Amino acid sequence: MSARPSERAGRTTGSHGHGDGSAAGPAHAAPHRLRHAPSQPARAKQLRRHNLALVLGEVAAGGRPTRAQVAARTGLTKATVSTLVDALAAHGLVLEGDPDRGLVGRPGLPLVLDPGGPAGLGVEVNVDYVSACVVDLTGTVRTARLVPCDNRHLERLAVLDAAARVARRCAAEARRAGLTVAGVGIALPGLVGLDGILHRAPNLPGWDGLDVAPALAPLLEALSPVVASDNEANLAALAERWYGGDPSNRDFVHVSGEIGVGAGIVVGGALWRGARGLGGELGHVTVAPGGDRCGCGARGCLEQLAGQEAILRAAGVSVRAATALGTPDGSVQELLRRARVGDQRTLAALARAGTALGVALAGLVNVVDVPVVVLGGLYAELAPWLADPVRAELEARVVGFAWSPTELRVSRLGGHAAVRGAAGAVVQAILADPAGSYPAMLDAS
Amino acid sequence: MSARPSERAGRTTGSHGHGDGSAAGPAHAAPHRLRHAPSQPARAKQLRRHNLALVLGEVAAGGRPTRAQVAARTGLTKATVSTLVDALAAHGLVLEGDPDRGLVGRPGLPLVLDPGGPAGLGVEVNVDYVSACVVDLTGTVRTARLVPCDNRHLERLAVLDAAARVARRCAAEARRAGLTVAGVGIALPGLVGLDGILHRAPNLPGWDGLDVAPALAPLLEALSPVVASDNEANLAALAERWYGGDPSNRDFVHVSGEIGVGAGIVVGGALWRGARGLGGELGHVTVAPGGDRCGCGARGCLEQLAGQEAILRAAGVSVRAATALGTPDGSVQELLRRARVGDQRTLAALARAGTALGVALAGLVNVVDVPVVVLGGLYAELAPWLADPVRAELEARVVGFAWSPTELRVSRLGGHAAVRGAAGAVVQAILADPAGSYPAMLDAS
Repeated sequence: MSARPSERAGRTTGSHGHGDGSAAGPAHAAPHRLRHAPSQPARAKQLRRHNLALVLGEVAAGGRPTRAQVAARTGLTKATVSTLVDALAAHGLVLEGDPDRGLVGRPGLPLVLDPGGPAGLGVEVNVDYVSACVVDLTGTVRTARLVPCDNRHLERLAVLDAAARVARRCAAEARRAGLTVAGVGIALPGLVGLDGILHRAPNLPGWDGLDVAPALAPLLEALSPVVASDNEANLAALAERWYGGDPSNRDFVHVSGEIGVGAGIVVGGALWRGARGLGGELGHVTVAPGGDRCGCGARGCLEQLAGQEAILRAAGVSVRAATALGTPDGSVQELLRRARVGDQRTLAALARAGTALGVALAGLVNVVDVPVVVLGGLYAELAPWLADPVRAELEARVVGFAWSPTELRVSRLGGHAAVRGAAGAVVQAILADPAGSYPAMLDAS
Repeated sequence: MSARPSERAGRTTGSHGHGDGSAAGPAHAAPHRLRHAPSQPARAKQLRRHNLALVLGEVAAGGRPTRAQVAARTGLTKATVSTLVDALAAHGLVLEGDPDRGLVGRPGLPLVLDPGGPAGLGVEVNVDYVSACVVDLTGTVRTARLVPCDNRHLERLAVLDAAARVARRCAAEARRAGLTVAGVGIALPGLVGLDGILHRAPNLPGWDGLDVAPALAPLLEALSPVVASDNEANLAALAERWYGGDPSNRDFVHVSGEIGVGAGIVVGGALWRGARGLGGELGHVTVAPGGDRCGCGARGCLEQLAGQEAILRAAGVSVRAATALGTPDGSVQELLRRARVGDQRTLAALARAGTALGVALAGLVNVVDVPVVVLGGLYAELAPWLADPVRAELEARVVGFAWSPTELRVSRLGGHAAVRGAAGAVVQAILADPAGSYPAMLDAS
């Protein structure tokens, strides 16, 4: 875990929840904008806010620095670092010592992020499941749950209710472990605008135009405010950036294969959302102009050749409401079983999907010029069969390939990257600006 | 013309030329980076540099403001504005008065950019022509020349020589008009890295890996330094941004159709280059996976269906080394003639090209989410026949279309947008940071 607090978390949609009323609860105050030269006290607060983030960033970068090392790296005096560390520790953000060995709270010991501090709750509504998870400040998943359900055939309210139920259960488990849920992030299977509204969900057409955060928040029963609401592919890409195990991987596209197919583009370590936040819709890039009709209305979209249901159909596996995580008897597990035993129809289906995916990804790389492609979600599980055809198309079709080959990687995050990214967006927002979440830190001295 | 100096010009590749030795010549100094708190005089210089750009920006934004209006808009005192305007006027960047009516140099009169001040020289090497133009500070093209030549069958040095010859001729004409060429921008038909190197030119394979600026500069005979070297589609998009007539158009993709097809993506008013500067290669996005072999080695690239030569072949027009600008008897003119008289084969070829272009553009819009598509270059001339099929594919395939329709526009810049962008990059760099080009401005007080 070495998330850098300087990187943007998911978009903030304002506080739709009720707050838990506790003194420790984050305020999610908007960053104060200073139009003119600030007065002396305002300037001191601004400086302290900046320095709190700086010190927390040094701790979050890992390496277990001492107060003295943080002072040396930031250029702040040891005395300043000490007051800042005290404030961060008082709000449960950093710990001194080695919690595994029972050594905590002694000055001079290494500083780490507090795994018992504020945590983020992620909630995901996808096409064939709802899920939730809790991520602590260090990025560790403390609890995660997934409930398969065919949301295309359920009322919106029933789906929101199911999502809220699994979220409340995760939050209760987190509380029993001593954690405080500081905020909620929501992952959605469609185009989410910068305003947080789900403008279009090709696979859940009844949801078009819904502002999910205020609809979901009351069902969470005063858990905590909703701080982020975003497309699931974007959040999965952020999870890969924050928790994928390679902090040097700052420029890549992460492609999530589920029933829908989406891409998250990360450039310079931050999510690149396009002009209006709706980019990355790789699943609706045309691969076969005269091909099958897609849920979006067009013909020959990538989803119709390489989406989960398209692969299952082509392999002759019955399409049930099932998914890759927690349902060992589901359709995807049957697909994997057949692939492992070398079933010809399954192998042909996977080869066809890999070729289509490679064609679409090559187009994306030609347009946005990212050096690395990461296969995530279902595609990570299917990588033993997809990687070769994807790589072949990238090599043949990326125009700069001979000069700089596109690298193909497989995500290690498994099938719940999006909900982990939704939870992570909450804690990343705290790490990036701790005093923005806990304004009381600015009053201490 | 209302270019905003805050927008980035083309990439700077360092000074490869010899400079013209005149005192008025710009220095193209790298922006000085101040790591620590600057000393008092350094801070004063830094402030003056910032304020010079601020004042010049107000003048460049148009509306002919007086000194008093500039002071009111920038928050600077009238005395400060006056010393800054004097420095800008002394270096030929601003004029007071109405040059058309012979009223210049009187304080209190409106301020405009000086059309007789420093100018940019653009040079373009494309597949079937070389060209050059000179753009003054106001963005007006003062002279432009194009020489058709089949560069695929010529030695590199002969092509560079032809380009240098046309450039020297334009520069001489500009000098006779009283202009000073302040720098050179180069437009190239391929992947240009952030280092200015032409890494790959699918239609000019012998040029792969060439650093064109130092190869061309000596042939320009001490004209002026090369300050920008970039892909022609990027520079054409910047020309559309700066000189396209709609300063409110800040988020768009501009697609240039020539023998090669390229896109320039503008987001928030600035060119978006992808992770490493090689993005926008729309011509090599796959439209028909099993289609014709492309110059890049792949099959079914957009260029093979909608590039200039592909359209000519499909229409049955002989493909000669000819182009849209200045060669009325060329193949493109013959194509236009046949289209106007309703030749069925030509109309079918254009419909097919428009459909392919629409499919590729829809994929780009799905991935990068720009609200506006601008047809440029050859596509602007062919827009009467291409617009309908392009629009139909965008409507059918852009997944967010129903919520927010993609708008299709036609560039009014004509066939020489790229070379105009190359010249414009020189003057935009001066407008964005006048003291960076003329450090002597910082010494005055």
